[in-house]
Amino acid sequence: MEDVGVGIVGLGNVGSGTLTILAENAGQITLKLGFRLCVKIVSSLDADTRTLPEALGAVERTLDWRRVTTHPGVDIVAELVGGTTVAREILETAIGHGKSVVTANKELMGLHGPDLWDKAIQAGVNVAMEASVAGGIPIHAVLREGISGDRVEALYGILNGTSNFILTEMEKRGEALEAVLAEAQRLGYAEADPSADIDGFDARSKLAILSALAFGERITPSDIYTEGIRRISQMDFQYAHRLGHTIRLLAAARLTRAGLVLSVRPALIPQSTILASVRGSYNAVWVKGHYGEDTFYYGRGAGPRPTGVAVVSDLMRVAREIRYGNPERVSPFAHERLGEYDPIPVTRQTRAYYLRFRVVDRPGIIAALAGILAEKHISLDAVLQLPCEDKKAVPFVITVEPSSEQAVREAVAKMSGLDFLIEPPLAMPMETGL
Amino acid sequence: MEDVGVGIVGLGNVGSGTLTILAENAGQITLKLGFRLCVKIVSSLDADTRTLPEALGAVERTLDWRRVTTHPGVDIVAELVGGTTVAREILETAIGHGKSVVTANKELMGLHGPDLWDKAIQAGVNVAMEASVAGGIPIHAVLREGISGDRVEALYGILNGTSNFILTEMEKRGEALEAVLAEAQRLGYAEADPSADIDGFDARSKLAILSALAFGERITPSDIYTEGIRRISQMDFQYAHRLGHTIRLLAAARLTRAGLVLSVRPALIPQSTILASVRGSYNAVWVKGHYGEDTFYYGRGAGPRPTGVAVVSDLMRVAREIRYGNPERVSPFAHERLGEYDPIPVTRQTRAYYLRFRVVDRPGIIAALAGILAEKHISLDAVLQLPCEDKKAVPFVITVEPSSEQAVREAVAKMSGLDFLIEPPLAMPMETGL
Repeated sequence: MEDVGVGIVGLGNVGSGTLTILAENAGQITLKLGFRLCVKIVSSLDADTRTLPEALGAVERTLDWRRVTTHPGVDIVAELVGGTTVAREILETAIGHGKSVVTANKELMGLHGPDLWDKAIQAGVNVAMEASVAGGIPIHAVLREGISGDRVEALYGILNGTSNFILTEMEKRGEALEAVLAEAQRLGYAEADPSADIDGFDARSKLAILSALAFGERITPSDIYTEGIRRISQMDFQYAHRLGHTIRLLAAARLTRAGLVLSVRPALIPQSTILASVRGSYNAVWVKGHYGEDTFYYGRGAGPRPTGVAVVSDLMRVAREIRYGNPERVSPFAHERLGEYDPIPVTRQTRAYYLRFRVVDRPGIIAALAGILAEKHISLDAVLQLPCEDKKAVPFVITVEPSSEQAVREAVAKMSGLDFLIEPPLAMPMETGL
Repeated sequence: MEDVGVGIVGLGNVGSGTLTILAENAGQITLKLGFRLCVKIVSSLDADTRTLPEALGAVERTLDWRRVTTHPGVDIVAELVGGTTVAREILETAIGHGKSVVTANKELMGLHGPDLWDKAIQAGVNVAMEASVAGGIPIHAVLREGISGDRVEALYGILNGTSNFILTEMEKRGEALEAVLAEAQRLGYAEADPSADIDGFDARSKLAILSALAFGERITPSDIYTEGIRRISQMDFQYAHRLGHTIRLLAAARLTRAGLVLSVRPALIPQSTILASVRGSYNAVWVKGHYGEDTFYYGRGAGPRPTGVAVVSDLMRVAREIRYGNPERVSPFAHERLGEYDPIPVTRQTRAYYLRFRVVDRPGIIAALAGILAEKHISLDAVLQLPCEDKKAVPFVITVEPSSEQAVREAVAKMSGLDFLIEPPLAMPMETGL
């Protein structure tokens, strides 16, 4: 059977990993498909000087991505450049020329996935995006096919490897966030500007994509309440452990009676849950299905080769559909609004919360805080204070029974004006139901 | 777009779960597909007296499965009866009449999967079997699509929920296997004849299917060394814990330089591995990919609704391929022999081993056992003895450095003749590399 032609735009980490796998694993790929995947042309800003794997044979190189998207021998274009401006143009041009596309671009698909899908379906081509979320975990295949018969009720993820590395190293080594971050930057695990990772924006894009797939709704990053990990300190780990929990940057999409609650934020999770065993730069996704109950998926979140596997697996699937004549006819993003899955503000959720304070020690503090909680109809669960030498900055924790986030936020805002507080209270949900 | 017609043979647990989901979740299913899945006919030995979900509308019932496999309105036949005789006839008849098939039958697919696939490809129809292994975990979608670009190097599974329930309850409650098994039987978690579960045969069928998919080889259950959990006792958990391990019935398929080693057997696994957190009747699969590294999948192993999700997801995938014209053209079982993945006997593997003895205490025992190990060129790693009152049946453990299983078996056979042993030594591999 005739080869399927592939064009690749972008030869960074993911592009290189993809070419390595296409070259080295060609034997298995051909056996699984019944035909060959053939790389016809690659494009990057340094394509003229790059060494490509010999096993790929003759591959055209170009500095101009438009040559890839219009190449007559190319059936599928893999966009591996990232960003949202040129990348979008690449995908739209490819689709406009009747090419199917494979992308690793979470930011673009998080923002414009539904529109790109609509264009692709009109053009009768496919969009594959397994590599855009949790590189090594085939979570798209799982949601799109593996458990497509189920009705997803909740999806929890650890979707940012850098912040998970930082939190779990803090936990392991007892060091401050700044120290661990600095080392991660030195080792190249974190960017010089770490904001996308540690402020939650990277995980937010990924959750926008996954929750759109899981719930069939048009969800954009702005629907997702997002809070990063900058305020997490050693004392929070100590208190969390005392409570039988640990802390992770948790991406959550939960269906409630009122609608879909979406958030990316640090949360306490029980140490006994399998999510707590996700350490270092690994990613994980936990899905609660109405029929299939709990399933859990774990793997590398990034890296040239794990993400390359996602790109190559997508190329294989799309190639199979091209050769055997089966383009997608229904967008995995937003089928049609069922209404029941409308996103609602996170302030409408009900959760137990962990409230951590640092105060100048003096009488009457608990009474003042408890008074504010009572005023907001929030039931106090426990007060916890670990030994502390420094009387000028005494940490302690109050946990509260399940309460509306709106009430908790109002209480925290009111508490923040109290003169014995050294900093505003830190509030984190306790995901005890995991 | 025109409905796709479904016929169901077998209305036991899985069949009932499937019908429930098809009825209740029809709205989402139709949105995801762009057309309806319509149940036309069901067959079971009590089909005439069964109450079917009203939302399914008019459904023909029959006591004769042949009416399902030949029904002109049926595009896909779901075989949910189990066993290997009638079930095989059902699948072959359906395929012969140009119907695609969905099956939850691990025993049949483990034994005859490759042949049934060959017949289906000749007939231009599809065979879907997600429900045949680890009901709630979409491991087929993962291997067939999600990570199809990777080269699998090893696959480990906890594939039998009953034996995992028994082992983890023994661990939690400190009770003997017999007591936990009796309770599991009383609660309906274990069959009156528990052999298929606790002797490893159920897990063996599942491993035959998964390793065929993962390695693209024609693998039959007889290629798999199989040993059950009957000899595991409380003292084994105590010693395993002391060694930082726990015990699970582990299905393993590992690629070595010599070939593929396949086994289902109790093994020591580190307590720190995520596999150790799989408790109760849950299942899990751990895949080591050459490019994508470690991925891990976890969920319900059985149950009407989780397995029903697998059946319905398969029906949706096959229906999509029927409507949009894309039958499989390549068997997922055995593409063609690459040779490198030929199964080899487990005796050729190299592993660390745990050897547990029960002896009548007297001088010279360690010397005698160590002498036999030395004779077989096996290096002793540690000798471990926990306190014991009963001098007439003293347990202790020897762990040995990585050695060939052949040598370990020869040593164990020779030790078994020693008169101070109360029972033959129990040998289990230590899967320290997980």
